[in-house]
Amino acid sequence: MADYPKHIHIMEVGPRDGLQMEARCLSVAEKVALIDMLADAGLTEIEVGSFVHPARVPQMADTDAVFAALSRREGVDYRALWLNLRGLERAVAAGADITAKLSIATSETFSRRNVGRSFEESLAAMPDWLEVYAAHGLRDVSLGVMTAFGCTYEGHVPEGRTVAMIARVAERLDAQGFRLAEVDLADTTGWGNPLQVSRVVGAIRERWPELPIKLHLHDTRGCGIANAIAGLALGVDRFDASIGGLGGCPFAGLKGAAGNIATEDFAFVCSEMGIETGLDPDALAAAARHAETLVGRPLPGKVFRAGHRRPTASTVTSASG
Amino acid sequence: MADYPKHIHIMEVGPRDGLQMEARCLSVAEKVALIDMLADAGLTEIEVGSFVHPARVPQMADTDAVFAALSRREGVDYRALWLNLRGLERAVAAGADITAKLSIATSETFSRRNVGRSFEESLAAMPDWLEVYAAHGLRDVSLGVMTAFGCTYEGHVPEGRTVAMIARVAERLDAQGFRLAEVDLADTTGWGNPLQVSRVVGAIRERWPELPIKLHLHDTRGCGIANAIAGLALGVDRFDASIGGLGGCPFAGLKGAAGNIATEDFAFVCSEMGIETGLDPDALAAAARHAETLVGRPLPGKVFRAGHRRPTASTVTSASG
Repeated sequence: MADYPKHIHIMEVGPRDGLQMEARCLSVAEKVALIDMLADAGLTEIEVGSFVHPARVPQMADTDAVFAALSRREGVDYRALWLNLRGLERAVAAGADITAKLSIATSETFSRRNVGRSFEESLAAMPDWLEVYAAHGLRDVSLGVMTAFGCTYEGHVPEGRTVAMIARVAERLDAQGFRLAEVDLADTTGWGNPLQVSRVVGAIRERWPELPIKLHLHDTRGCGIANAIAGLALGVDRFDASIGGLGGCPFAGLKGAAGNIATEDFAFVCSEMGIETGLDPDALAAAARHAETLVGRPLPGKVFRAGHRRPTASTVTSASG
Repeated sequence: MADYPKHIHIMEVGPRDGLQMEARCLSVAEKVALIDMLADAGLTEIEVGSFVHPARVPQMADTDAVFAALSRREGVDYRALWLNLRGLERAVAAGADITAKLSIATSETFSRRNVGRSFEESLAAMPDWLEVYAAHGLRDVSLGVMTAFGCTYEGHVPEGRTVAMIARVAERLDAQGFRLAEVDLADTTGWGNPLQVSRVVGAIRERWPELPIKLHLHDTRGCGIANAIAGLALGVDRFDASIGGLGGCPFAGLKGAAGNIATEDFAFVCSEMGIETGLDPDALAAAARHAETLVGRPLPGKVFRAGHRRPTASTVTSASG
């Protein structure tokens, strides 16, 4: 039977993975206020922004300034995304809470087109990354796996290929005195389905029973929560999510745009299933409403609109159908 | 392990359960054209409208006219909803394809408030219904179970209560020469979660292993597809769905409004999981786009916007992230 965890950890990625897709660039003060609301809701790991080329992602050009303006809460990790060593240096300089991350894509076509290198080239570049991480005392590495549940270009990705790629990275890490501490599976282009999530997670579990697995799921085709539940059923207890489902732009005609699962929707269903998130549903709903106001378009999250609380008998005044 | 069916049947409820929620009343011609597109997409059971009080549901006031204007396709059942015997008579007169249906709610509060009678009163009213069904030669009865996965007023509904209610109806049916041929479980107010769907479906399966179960799921809190998958995993092979997710009005500020799962999104994930629906994804997408134009607001369905087809190598011209 299902092996649902007792409690899970959600990293909030709305300020980064969400806002980078929005037409409107938020000000530093707006971003900081949103991040504060997210911390108020109980989120203890928040991706603040990314250190990438400002010409490519103008929404993230001010990430240094956002980090400088944050009033940090104790117990909250403020994360950043980077894609190259220059970005990592900027993240360190800005004061981001750094973890050691490496990234591969299971699809060679996606890897070449979107990351600009093959899997072998990614492997060859690893020592440069590890040198920097070692300098920061980081030996536990999280491996991000893009297109883990299929690819727009290559279609279905066999689980065996994914496991073999992870195994090669794990061997290299071991050989160099590092440890594969997490695999972060991303449904990058939103083709995942629950059966496939079960298969990929199951194959990794079979090979490395103790290795923590994280899921980064987009709701591109309406399957995000169902895919997350498939992960939960296999005991996965680490997830990314974005407040209000930020990042989707489903109604702006941006074909294929893929928002993450909405933090408040996922937290709601977990709570209904008896799985603790440590999050405050009222504060999440407030943050989602605020995010919607900031971006100026309807967000796809549902619970913040429909409500998460059953009215008590005394507050019920009219029947609903 | 999961007991996924090889193929499933979807009843399209958009023209009824969807359009009854829309601000804009469609014309008879518009409804007929949409219904034709749905039949073109391979849907073989379509709920055309309801025979209810026109003052309460003005969007459905012309259901007689819609039935009269339909150009019926062979192999397609054109269904209607009714809530009382007068409605059933109108449905028969209009030429709707009639099945024998009874309805109860697991929540007594919901039953009294929304249906206007208790469970015992529903039982007491059964003979009147059965007389009409018998007159039409119908002996196989589908029992609709409202608030099967929780209620806004009463919260969690124990599976035991649901099973006991179904058992009482089944006994009465047997005693009067009818047969309980289907249980149609409705997440009427959208509080369901996948664990609960598993529990309720499992409890019914345990008691009546051969009894077909149907699911009518609303996506009020983002869990509709996940709940459907939970049903699929237990072998449920009958579902309601509405094109484009019609009926939700999630962005119109209508708090608590609950659209059904989107036909094209559910058909997509089924197809990705190797479960046949008999539906044409291109025609479904076209119907969803058309429905969106008709109602004049963005519909919540996702696949018709994001696309269901991976581009072939030759059509890929730019990278997506």
